[in-house]
Amino acid sequence: MGDEKLAVLLLSGGMDSSTLLAKLLNEGWIVNPVIFDYGQRHQKLENEAAQKLISFYKVGKFAHLMKDAKVIKLDLTQIGNSALTDNIDVPDNMEEQAKTVVPYRNTLMTTLATAYAETINVTDIFITPVKEDFEAYPDCRATYFNSLSTTLSLGATKQPTEIQVHVPFVNTWKADVISLGFRLGVPYDLTHTCYNGISPACGECPACRERLNAFKLNGVEDPIPYVKIPEVLV
Amino acid sequence: MGDEKLAVLLLSGGMDSSTLLAKLLNEGWIVNPVIFDYGQRHQKLENEAAQKLISFYKVGKFAHLMKDAKVIKLDLTQIGNSALTDNIDVPDNMEEQAKTVVPYRNTLMTTLATAYAETINVTDIFITPVKEDFEAYPDCRATYFNSLSTTLSLGATKQPTEIQVHVPFVNTWKADVISLGFRLGVPYDLTHTCYNGISPACGECPACRERLNAFKLNGVEDPIPYVKIPEVLV
Repeated sequence: MGDEKLAVLLLSGGMDSSTLLAKLLNEGWIVNPVIFDYGQRHQKLENEAAQKLISFYKVGKFAHLMKDAKVIKLDLTQIGNSALTDNIDVPDNMEEQAKTVVPYRNTLMTTLATAYAETINVTDIFITPVKEDFEAYPDCRATYFNSLSTTLSLGATKQPTEIQVHVPFVNTWKADVISLGFRLGVPYDLTHTCYNGISPACGECPACRERLNAFKLNGVEDPIPYVKIPEVLV
Repeated sequence: MGDEKLAVLLLSGGMDSSTLLAKLLNEGWIVNPVIFDYGQRHQKLENEAAQKLISFYKVGKFAHLMKDAKVIKLDLTQIGNSALTDNIDVPDNMEEQAKTVVPYRNTLMTTLATAYAETINVTDIFITPVKEDFEAYPDCRATYFNSLSTTLSLGATKQPTEIQVHVPFVNTWKADVISLGFRLGVPYDLTHTCYNGISPACGECPACRERLNAFKLNGVEDPIPYVKIPEVLV
């Protein structure tokens, strides 16, 4: 204790949170991953990917830092209003990405992760919005997370407590996130991104397009298989 | 539309939210109640009480203002750390009330209610912490709710949106809340309070004691039955 750096990380099994997992382990954080089961279409493969990443890091030099996942169920289908949870078609272009907004998804996930963190005495919570999320998702912005940190600090059971919700990639483009990941040796072949929740990935949903574009900008071939890779990505 | 005052109210079936329901209806608010099913012991009778109150106000002069309940499931047993959801005995005295804290319960409930509110275009959310809650529950304080209102406004899907989380009883003692309720004709016989989730109510848990004390201070007999009424309440 004392000098230990304890983190709770929201791990989705996608590229961004996987890269942050590698970054935190490299920085010596003890990482307690939280995986959400919130009723989204792409759930199953994402959660499997997250568990594979944890197993990957439980072997080798980071084994002492990699903790087991806490899986938290959060049924957002009951709130609705989103293509990710309702029977609305997932949009096949970026303009309609707003349809994939689940109201306050990040607020709910971060707050549940912080409630779990309180039970294991952790005050540093990590979540991975990236610069691409900025336009479509208000709850992916730095000002929002600063405000949320303040709210969660004020609401902690023991007072005073300083909860810090860290968003280290909030001003980083996805291409730069995975550029960091390449240097850290992130096994991107284990990650899952497609909003349609299929493997091979569809290649056409906004999430696939952003992922493919990020690899293309790095001049690296994406190691996961796709049904189809569109010629124009963004 | 236009001049309509639209409210989302977190309705527990207890005294405080029932009183606020009556207050809002008297003030001409169209009230959309949200009932939570979050795995607490006293759940069943509370939710039944909430539905009875809604039925009560659906008849008569407030029928046009009283909307059906949205029931939202939120499984807090998976977070734990509380006598209300775990297999920990409910404390029979006020000193141990801190054991009944579910971390960030109000944050989660308010955020889910606000997510629902977004789907029905409501920005005024009402929740009923009272002055008695101040010491044991940091997330029952006005500064906390002001911060939460800011966070939820920043996180709303459409920007700018001003979400207002109203806590009209936050500086009001429970005895004064029900004093208002008597003037408004709140049917307290329909409400449920006991943390042990039994009827007749136990009379000894912190919630029963606070309720009995509030009636006693008003010189009014509580209309619900109790197993036992302690001589010393607080």
